[in-house]
Amino acid sequence: MKDTFTIGGIALKSRLFVGTGKFSSHQIMTEAIEASNAQVVTVALRRIDLDSAEENVLNFIPKNCILLPNTSGARTAEEAVRIARIARAAGCGNWIKIEVISDHKYLLPDNYETIKATEILAKEGFVVLPYMNPDLMVAKRLQEAGAAAVMPLGAPIGTNRGLKTKEMIRILIDEINLPIIVDAGIGKPSEAAEAMEMGAAAVLVNTAIATAGDPVAMARAFDLAVQAGRMAHISGPGATRLYAEASSPLTGFLE
Amino acid sequence: MKDTFTIGGIALKSRLFVGTGKFSSHQIMTEAIEASNAQVVTVALRRIDLDSAEENVLNFIPKNCILLPNTSGARTAEEAVRIARIARAAGCGNWIKIEVISDHKYLLPDNYETIKATEILAKEGFVVLPYMNPDLMVAKRLQEAGAAAVMPLGAPIGTNRGLKTKEMIRILIDEINLPIIVDAGIGKPSEAAEAMEMGAAAVLVNTAIATAGDPVAMARAFDLAVQAGRMAHISGPGATRLYAEASSPLTGFLE
Amino acid sequence: MKDTFTIGGIALKSRLFVGTGKFSSHQIMTEAIEASNAQVVTVALRRIDLDSAEENVLNFIPKNCILLPNTSGARTAEEAVRIARIARAAGCGNWIKIEVISDHKYLLPDNYETIKATEILAKEGFVVLPYMNPDLMVAKRLQEAGAAAVMPLGAPIGTNRGLKTKEMIRILIDEINLPIIVDAGIGKPSEAAEAMEMGAAAVLVNTAIATAGDPVAMARAFDLAVQAGRMAHISGPGATRLYAEASSPLTGFLE
Amino acid sequence: MKDTFTIGGIALKSRLFVGTGKFSSHQIMTEAIEASNAQVVTVALRRIDLDSAEENVLNFIPKNCILLPNTSGARTAEEAVRIARIARAAGCGNWIKIEVISDHKYLLPDNYETIKATEILAKEGFVVLPYMNPDLMVAKRLQEAGAAAVMPLGAPIGTNRGLKTKEMIRILIDEINLPIIVDAGIGKPSEAAEAMEMGAAAVLVNTAIATAGDPVAMARAFDLAVQAGRMAHISGPGATRLYAEASSPLTGFLE
Repeated sequence: MKDTFTIGGIALKSRLFVGTGKFSSHQIMTEAIEASNAQVVTVALRRIDLDSAEENVLNFIPKNCILLPNTSGARTAEEAVRIARIARAAGCGNWIKIEVISDHKYLLPDNYETIKATEILAKEGFVVLPYMNPDLMVAKRLQEAGAAAVMPLGAPIGTNRGLKTKEMIRILIDEINLPIIVDAGIGKPSEAAEAMEMGAAAVLVNTAIATAGDPVAMARAFDLAVQAGRMAHISGPGATRLYAEASSPLTGFLE
Repeated sequence: MKDTFTIGGIALKSRLFVGTGKFSSHQIMTEAIEASNAQVVTVALRRIDLDSAEENVLNFIPKNCILLPNTSGARTAEEAVRIARIARAAGCGNWIKIEVISDHKYLLPDNYETIKATEILAKEGFVVLPYMNPDLMVAKRLQEAGAAAVMPLGAPIGTNRGLKTKEMIRILIDEINLPIIVDAGIGKPSEAAEAMEMGAAAVLVNTAIATAGDPVAMARAFDLAVQAGRMAHISGPGATRLYAEASSPLTGFLE
Repeated sequence: MKDTFTIGGIALKSRLFVGTGKFSSHQIMTEAIEASNAQVVTVALRRIDLDSAEENVLNFIPKNCILLPNTSGARTAEEAVRIARIARAAGCGNWIKIEVISDHKYLLPDNYETIKATEILAKEGFVVLPYMNPDLMVAKRLQEAGAAAVMPLGAPIGTNRGLKTKEMIRILIDEINLPIIVDAGIGKPSEAAEAMEMGAAAVLVNTAIATAGDPVAMARAFDLAVQAGRMAHISGPGATRLYAEASSPLTGFLE
Repeated sequence: MKDTFTIGGIALKSRLFVGTGKFSSHQIMTEAIEASNAQVVTVALRRIDLDSAEENVLNFIPKNCILLPNTSGARTAEEAVRIARIARAAGCGNWIKIEVISDHKYLLPDNYETIKATEILAKEGFVVLPYMNPDLMVAKRLQEAGAAAVMPLGAPIGTNRGLKTKEMIRILIDEINLPIIVDAGIGKPSEAAEAMEMGAAAVLVNTAIATAGDPVAMARAFDLAVQAGRMAHISGPGATRLYAEASSPLTGFLE
């Protein structure tokens, strides 16, 4: 079975995107990314030391991965746009994950600045993946603005709290004709699997892998869970019932 | 990493047990069992036609699997004991899953009769895996009675309702020195993964695979999900937080 | 204890707002509103027949209630503004609940148009209560725009699905210095109580009352539940614990 | 509307039972019981000083309440029976709540010893209310043994964790012809309301009231919440829907 989804003209097989923050070392990060089988890796442009080859985080991202620079640190559309342009000029490719955040306690995205940045960057030829608070009307505008996917949050960044916005993500999946990539909040493989069972196109995981006791094993666990959830979605789960139904015959065996 | 658990002296690598009921054909059942990578397969003795070689469901269970006959149809300890003895005499081995059920609407097990049957059969040398309503005091008695594992239900049989008894299963995992195998109710791979993340030793899945649109793909999905959940449990998940924590640096990039 | 909250300069004692849609008769609506003890009653301006005294729904709203006309039917800020002005000109007072909805399947609000309408109407002296998809940055903008409260949804209108957006409502309560009034989705008194326990200032209920078997008794149930939840919030609930703690002494009585 | 339920031949109007443990003073306990409007009050016989009139907790329980002595401290049926007999001989009446607990970490009840004690005490003319781990087959046996009600736990005693055993309580309500009184674990009024909405006959609350910042106000909150939940159950809640349904007309107002 060939099950892929397409972003920016590229057919992706792995539905697990990973982040590069919070790892205890570059070495562990590299191993975890490899173990995750991710094809798309996000990195804050802020962390890319454009002058130093040695310390550059990019050197520790496997070469076959697609780079998804993010605009972390941007508080307005304008700042996000500037960061995106710098990233492309620096040779990081034309994919960009827009993060516009001015709230420092919950790190919740600013949907309207995000729409503005998406409009500008999509016109400039970027493959734009906006991080968003799940909201149907915003997702529709991001679609019109030329987004390549939408990335609703499951819970605030770094909380490992899981799919707390399930109701709204379900609606985005139902209504929006773009890949829905659940980003932020996913803390355990079971939650990643559930997002995929619901019909998400992919999930992005960072904190849950980077802060695990064994990040490399956890990366592998997420890879398997995402595959499992996707497979289940395609397979068509059986119905849920209120009353029991025997798996084995109940007529008295000994009668 | 060699991660196994032991039942009846046998080290098991796969933590997914599967059932054989409700499949649309023997052929699909065989393919699904193979796809699941299960090492232990449960079958109702009632379904084993001891006289006919041709129709015998056993012929469709992969040869390398351990057979776990169950006492489905038994309404008392006495009946369960009789079925277990017939199964062993018929060459089905000495593993037995005790199901004692007299409730026809929710198919909930009779813990008391289950303890009685466990005592008798463990003394007779059976490897006894009792299906139970999760209850700490009952699990302690099953342990004393010589059970090889305990199999608490997640929800009524065949309902696909998930881990509705999570609170009690968590307590069994915390307090009982036997493998805890979650049996019944699991409807999706994400739920199987969650049971494993909680520290269950294994899960048994039947209805969710057999009634899926594509049972073979769903069996594969459950295999991956169980591996993912187990790996996550071992890896040590990161902490859950109420407030956000940045994965990427937030100091203004453009300052 | 005098526990009130203030909107538009009016101290409100009842924290249950009710709606007037979907009742089987005007008579039952009147009785249900009275049973609810609500002080604020919302009504779609569309349903107010400005020309006919007889059929006018306003005649069936108890005289001591504050009228909260809503802009149901508006698809843009401009339309909402026009409806608000008509309502005021027609003598419906200067409170207005802004509903801007262009999605016909889930009836989810358009936060962006809602902010625009709020800005305009607050400047014109209206007491503006905007219905919104819960989003921290939007709530901040509504606050800046002069909203008198914010009304985040618990679930899509009319679904009776409960507090599906709990995570985001909790954040609004934590961060926004305006009364948070949970509107839409609340299906049972227990859910209204939970919203109040979380610290919501009030809840608005319509479908759950109007479509109950006995709307009058259900209205009374919601009144009690809202009071209960509010009282619990003020009382300071005890801590939640993972392990048990005896309420009664456990030292062996008979020793 | 006269809505009562009957235990031991007595028609009870209040569906909130309260406990007497963990209060910071007898005075506050008395006030909280009065505020709760409870008609049935449970007390550990162990705490009743049968020799001292002054310190006797019974003196602080309002005179119009029915006393429900409990067998806290009993680890076996035999001990529970002895405590029950002492309670009756001491003039505490013939109601008895059976608690048989030998697990000191989670304080989970021993269902089988509980059944044994119920059989003996029911034959001796006691009105027996057994505390139990929710289990359909056990509830059936308690019914046969002559129990006047069954008291399934929502979560371990004193945890304030809520209705964690909802699935099994729902089944008891569906299948058992005795009042189902949810006991233990209820931490907030909203949870008490939910139990009542599900069809429980009553709830027993102790820790959540006694450990609240303001126990008297919390007692009142639980009284209201229990009434609200009961009323909602009787009223017949409207259906839950997946898609939205407008409360107000959506046809464009301005067309």
